[in-house]
Amino acid sequence: MSGRYYPSPHPPPPRGPRGEGESTPLSAPGRGRASGTLIGVGVGPGDPELITLKGAEAIRSADVIFAPTRRAGQTSDALRIAEWLVDAARQQVVCIPFPDEANDDGWRQACDAIAAALDGGQRGVFLVEGDPSLYSSFGHVAKALAGLAPWLRVEVVAGVSSLSAAAAAAGMGLADGGERVAILPANHSLDALEETLRAFESVVLIKVGPVLREVIEQLDRLGLVDKAIYVRRCGRPDQQVVHDLRSLASKPPRDYFALIIVRRSGA
Amino acid sequence: MSGRYYPSPHPPPPRGPRGEGESTPLSAPGRGRASGTLIGVGVGPGDPELITLKGAEAIRSADVIFAPTRRAGQTSDALRIAEWLVDAARQQVVCIPFPDEANDDGWRQACDAIAAALDGGQRGVFLVEGDPSLYSSFGHVAKALAGLAPWLRVEVVAGVSSLSAAAAAAGMGLADGGERVAILPANHSLDALEETLRAFESVVLIKVGPVLREVIEQLDRLGLVDKAIYVRRCGRPDQQVVHDLRSLASKPPRDYFALIIVRRSGA
Repeated sequence: MSGRYYPSPHPPPPRGPRGEGESTPLSAPGRGRASGTLIGVGVGPGDPELITLKGAEAIRSADVIFAPTRRAGQTSDALRIAEWLVDAARQQVVCIPFPDEANDDGWRQACDAIAAALDGGQRGVFLVEGDPSLYSSFGHVAKALAGLAPWLRVEVVAGVSSLSAAAAAAGMGLADGGERVAILPANHSLDALEETLRAFESVVLIKVGPVLREVIEQLDRLGLVDKAIYVRRCGRPDQQVVHDLRSLASKPPRDYFALIIVRRSGA
Repeated sequence: MSGRYYPSPHPPPPRGPRGEGESTPLSAPGRGRASGTLIGVGVGPGDPELITLKGAEAIRSADVIFAPTRRAGQTSDALRIAEWLVDAARQQVVCIPFPDEANDDGWRQACDAIAAALDGGQRGVFLVEGDPSLYSSFGHVAKALAGLAPWLRVEVVAGVSSLSAAAAAAGMGLADGGERVAILPANHSLDALEETLRAFESVVLIKVGPVLREVIEQLDRLGLVDKAIYVRRCGRPDQQVVHDLRSLASKPPRDYFALIIVRRSGA
């Protein structure tokens, strides 16, 4: 199955009824070896209270907390969201810098420390900003560990996405009834933006920072700028929700991870 | 601003820095009146532990819990997810049946009980399955209350969507890097499905139950059936994740809210 975090050599067994609250293993531990566990936990987009009960419990009960950083030596945004749940006296915190070369080799090197730390059967969590399924690094981490540490059990706890939190912050819904939603990384989608805006009732442009001015110009030209809102630093102390996008065009904020929601219809 | 839960008569004030954990009011209470509060809380798609810490606290501290039901007299799925947080001795639970006629008048009638129960300045929560921004009834509720009870302060706490939880259950990501995601209500989108599957790396078909056979046939014809997974009853004790969609075609499960994720690329 393409797109799986953990490419298993065998097809997954048919699943029977499961107990509520039980996590789904993405990989089964090998036999005859102490099996470590790594849980990718979505900690939400910024507000520490948007962590789920399941995620909080996974963090509290872990032996090792892995926290991604953009570069070696930098602080981890995901750790900043979850650190109030971490007991530094009892739990080990290991920062995992994103690889300079974001290819398979790079990710394997980056994940060596995870395999080593869980080699004795420990329980680890890997903190993920937002939700692990949407534009997170956890797919790369799980894939690298499938090669490095096939004995490791890998699971995922879903989180609140930045889309959902931004919509809540702006006081709007993304879709209702038969409406369709498109999620586009803005810096890859400028050419097809107009077509998508015509075909979908709701369009979320993520990572809009680098092309903010161009996006606002297109929305204005299509008569949609009044149907759009801009959100950055969602759930953080300096969160900003902007309803008048034209006010941003003259001096666009430099925020790579900002997003724009355009909803054509709605109450 | 179109699509807002709560159409305010005045443009929203510019927002300064906010404290973390603070909710964004969608409406301000009127002056000189005890102001009730209603918080739309996303309780996630089924697993009671996927409720957020913020949502759980809102539920625990509410005077009145409003629980939507499909028809009068039926049980509430959202309440089933959250009822372990409810103290029946201290908190009032009010079921709100969806209106028979899902128009503005119908929703206003359905929401009369909410306005009445919070008239004395009480604090209420309205439970929403999944996330309030995605295909929930909360937009209708907030709009109806804007007319019925303009003194009411309305807020939203985002939740984990069924998309994120289904991806986690299936052990896959929805998108990475520059990939684009489309979310389609399947029963409204059969005609445009092929075009969308060609244009988007990831397509989530929600409410796939009524047209499951047709969707599987299309995926098979386009060579995408092996890139798709089917999830129903996500996070519930009888959750089912199916990787071989062809096995469903002969006897499709009758589950309106099931979903299919198609991801063309991926690790």
